[in-house]
Amino acid sequence: MAQRILILGGGFAGMFAAREVKKRLGQAAEVELINDQNYFVFQPLLPEVAGGSITAPHAVSPLRFLLRDVFVRQARVDSVDFERKIVTVFQGVQRRPTEIAYDHLIVAMGQTVDLSRTPGLTEHALTMKTLEDARRLRAHVIERLEHAEITQLPEVKREALTFCVVGAGFSGVETVGEMKELIDRSLKYYPNIDPSEVRVVVVEFAGRVLGELPEKLGAYAARKLEERGIEVMLNTGVASATGTRLITTTGQEIPTRTIVATIGNAPSRVVRELALEKAHGRIVVERTLQAKGRQDVWSLGDCALIPMKEGAAERGDFAPPTAQFAVREARTVAANIAAALQGRPLKPFQYVSQGALASLGARRGVAQVWGINISGLPAWLLWRAYYLSFLPGFGTRVRVLINWILDALSPRSVVQIRSYTPPAARYVHYRAGDRVFEAGNRADGFYTVISGAVELSYQDEATGGTVTTRIGPGGHFGERLILGQQRRSGTVRALEDSKVLVLDREEFLKIADGFPVVRDYFKAHMKEVYGIDWSPNSGQQG
Amino acid sequence: MAQRILILGGGFAGMFAAREVKKRLGQAAEVELINDQNYFVFQPLLPEVAGGSITAPHAVSPLRFLLRDVFVRQARVDSVDFERKIVTVFQGVQRRPTEIAYDHLIVAMGQTVDLSRTPGLTEHALTMKTLEDARRLRAHVIERLEHAEITQLPEVKREALTFCVVGAGFSGVETVGEMKELIDRSLKYYPNIDPSEVRVVVVEFAGRVLGELPEKLGAYAARKLEERGIEVMLNTGVASATGTRLITTTGQEIPTRTIVATIGNAPSRVVRELALEKAHGRIVVERTLQAKGRQDVWSLGDCALIPMKEGAAERGDFAPPTAQFAVREARTVAANIAAALQGRPLKPFQYVSQGALASLGARRGVAQVWGINISGLPAWLLWRAYYLSFLPGFGTRVRVLINWILDALSPRSVVQIRSYTPPAARYVHYRAGDRVFEAGNRADGFYTVISGAVELSYQDEATGGTVTTRIGPGGHFGERLILGQQRRSGTVRALEDSKVLVLDREEFLKIADGFPVVRDYFKAHMKEVYGIDWSPNSGQQG
Repeated sequence: MAQRILILGGGFAGMFAAREVKKRLGQAAEVELINDQNYFVFQPLLPEVAGGSITAPHAVSPLRFLLRDVFVRQARVDSVDFERKIVTVFQGVQRRPTEIAYDHLIVAMGQTVDLSRTPGLTEHALTMKTLEDARRLRAHVIERLEHAEITQLPEVKREALTFCVVGAGFSGVETVGEMKELIDRSLKYYPNIDPSEVRVVVVEFAGRVLGELPEKLGAYAARKLEERGIEVMLNTGVASATGTRLITTTGQEIPTRTIVATIGNAPSRVVRELALEKAHGRIVVERTLQAKGRQDVWSLGDCALIPMKEGAAERGDFAPPTAQFAVREARTVAANIAAALQGRPLKPFQYVSQGALASLGARRGVAQVWGINISGLPAWLLWRAYYLSFLPGFGTRVRVLINWILDALSPRSVVQIRSYTPPAARYVHYRAGDRVFEAGNRADGFYTVISGAVELSYQDEATGGTVTTRIGPGGHFGERLILGQQRRSGTVRALEDSKVLVLDREEFLKIADGFPVVRDYFKAHMKEVYGIDWSPNSGQQG
Repeated sequence: MAQRILILGGGFAGMFAAREVKKRLGQAAEVELINDQNYFVFQPLLPEVAGGSITAPHAVSPLRFLLRDVFVRQARVDSVDFERKIVTVFQGVQRRPTEIAYDHLIVAMGQTVDLSRTPGLTEHALTMKTLEDARRLRAHVIERLEHAEITQLPEVKREALTFCVVGAGFSGVETVGEMKELIDRSLKYYPNIDPSEVRVVVVEFAGRVLGELPEKLGAYAARKLEERGIEVMLNTGVASATGTRLITTTGQEIPTRTIVATIGNAPSRVVRELALEKAHGRIVVERTLQAKGRQDVWSLGDCALIPMKEGAAERGDFAPPTAQFAVREARTVAANIAAALQGRPLKPFQYVSQGALASLGARRGVAQVWGINISGLPAWLLWRAYYLSFLPGFGTRVRVLINWILDALSPRSVVQIRSYTPPAARYVHYRAGDRVFEAGNRADGFYTVISGAVELSYQDEATGGTVTTRIGPGGHFGERLILGQQRRSGTVRALEDSKVLVLDREEFLKIADGFPVVRDYFKAHMKEVYGIDWSPNSGQQG
């Protein structure tokens, strides 16, 4: 009977593992790949999607196109039972768990982002991990330009035109380069924005950029970025973030409404919960790519800690988390599973990097190939040629090439398609002194103070004097505007660094109308505090 | 001093009005256009976006490209004060209102969709009005195919593979045609789906399709749709809808997870609240396109009721809501504003339709041009040529043409990019007998019954017997799974037709953790009803 080989994850590691296993084992294996998206993302092109030189569909390929004899299941992995050899998933819109059996399991789930160590960063930074992230960043940058073009407030304009990228590795450098190019090429459509008003900053904790490349290329890259007007802040980390500020570890306060975090790689929840040995958040594997202590579980790609020699201990002794390595690891996994099934000895993973490439945007790049350093236009052309050849599927390659040519010949579109809806209930961080809400503003939400304290001040209608109230943890505001349907309101400022839970107006109304505990509370509260008779559904017309 | 001409809306009517006014008045006018999106949508291409023959960015153009000497403001209109001649908007992420003065105001805000007259349709139907709608429909169809491919449940598969379009006007017919083509071309990637399992239905209240075209072409279109395996249900309306059912006015119950409503045109909130005379939800205008009783307010496009002759009374006496007419109306508005400023007499709007075109998908179309009926491939080619020539901007035209050619030569991508997040608090409709929640399901939300009644049944751990509880309006369930972190649960069924408010797990947790009233309620409730000691933040690890 055919062996069931189950692969978790459809990135470079998982997709190529599925291909290689099917190629080696043919009918001897039933190969299934589980991924929460039905497409493969060509990660190196994400900064280009963010910059708009190609559109989102061109950076992805359907897994079903790429894996013809593999069963592809779009589902979310919940857990793995290594004893029963069962993976539990949730598929479709179903809430019902589905169990899938395996003979051999390949874990290739990559990494996710965890920014929780820096206050405010989770809530206020964009990331660059998924296709949605890239699209969202592009829309976000254009939205800031639109806003800067029309606002009358100098401070808002300054915040809108300051763009910060955190981290200057491959992802950070390529993102900041593409973002700057998008802005530069768009400015001619925004007559009210002077190029000198735009500030683009990349913040890096280390003392240099592109730590993966030789010192000389890193220095070249930093110089090129600076020549293009990008501030490179080295030896600088992020201390905290709010919706309008980035505070660095060196004590600087950057007024900005755009923070892109390319740092904080972390294991996904599923990998974290797997009953496998882990180190530095990665699955510990043998050099054969078998998970430690398991004959039937394999792991590769970014989620695995792969020793490149016996007794590996230092960072350089392990395989780097790059596409180049993942593709080679996939071959080793396939060969070793075939060997295991046939009772032959397994081989350790071995590979020497052929080089590294980075695009800096604006037709400049840096590369080290077979030990040779290349920079400028040749490196940029090499970058594009390399990735074009690497793209899976002839059709995708043609489409990307045509779109690159069209991009070079025509202006870049500033269409801002919204693809991101902020969560209806979200935490917002404020620094002491920040405006939280201003008199006359529209009632956009219901606010509950989680930590810190804010001050509400309003004019007393009877006396004409100003009344101020301190609102601490558990206290709330915003309900009078929504339920009372009044535009007259007070101003709220943060007294301390504060964390506030904001619930969108529409969601708040549905809950206040529908959930009895909340309804009764606000009926009494509105009467008692504001003398307003509120009854359910009364706010929905507003 | 230059006159300030302010235009609300950036669709065909507003965009062309801005162009024409600027062309006529030049430096004599300061023209500003306000739109909530920064792009112009080429509406006739939306079904093609839904079908995937072109990507979303190709159906839109940035308003700033199209309107070089016009000030474009991306903002949401809040209200108009006709006495002070002021429009109030909210712009950017700001919650602060901004006031904009005008000398002449042109209202071209189109229409929105209102499905509230049919129970469940607002909550469970997709629409086809915006670019987001089109992208969402494409992703939705592919998600249904992915789910049908892997589910083990025959009923779920049947629901997933049944696709319903409501309304067989231009939008409905083109949408159902493109949707069928997308499905047909994708099926080869879904080996577990047999073509005979797919059911595509278009439901139309009238006795024929494409009521805007001659009887003969309507009959041809219906025949072509049926030949392609699309069921055309005439004289049939929608009585109600749930997440898995469409109930027709003829008493049929169609098990489906896809309902696309192309009906229910209605005025937007802003138009509804304008202090102007309205009829049938539209702004009543003179034949000069001036709003009734106003010299300085003009209206055109779908939001205006434009008489084509004196004493207009019947539907046919008014201008139809098509792009063809909107573009001509824009010329009349511009000419009349120029005439008004120069004290010349105004002219009434006059135009005779040149014809009408509809694409049926799969390279078939119907058209009536200068009184001549055309059908089949020639009509389809004419459709594409006409809209290609109509597309604003040479670059866009080239891109769309190239993408059409690529689409004809290569397989259609089944990439399913999620662009839609359902609201965190939403109403769900169930029919009596429907499963609401099944034992063993994942805890995805907190449920409050709004109307109707459901029955919760679970096994009593002590006795082993089944306990059933009726939950009526105001009652709730789901909290034990989320706050108690238990997978063991009961099954919930609707006893009557019911409306339930569902609050997503993550949002519910944030509110239960952060908002004291809710926190205190659940602390007591969990202890009292389930004997569980719940404390805030305990659920967040799950």
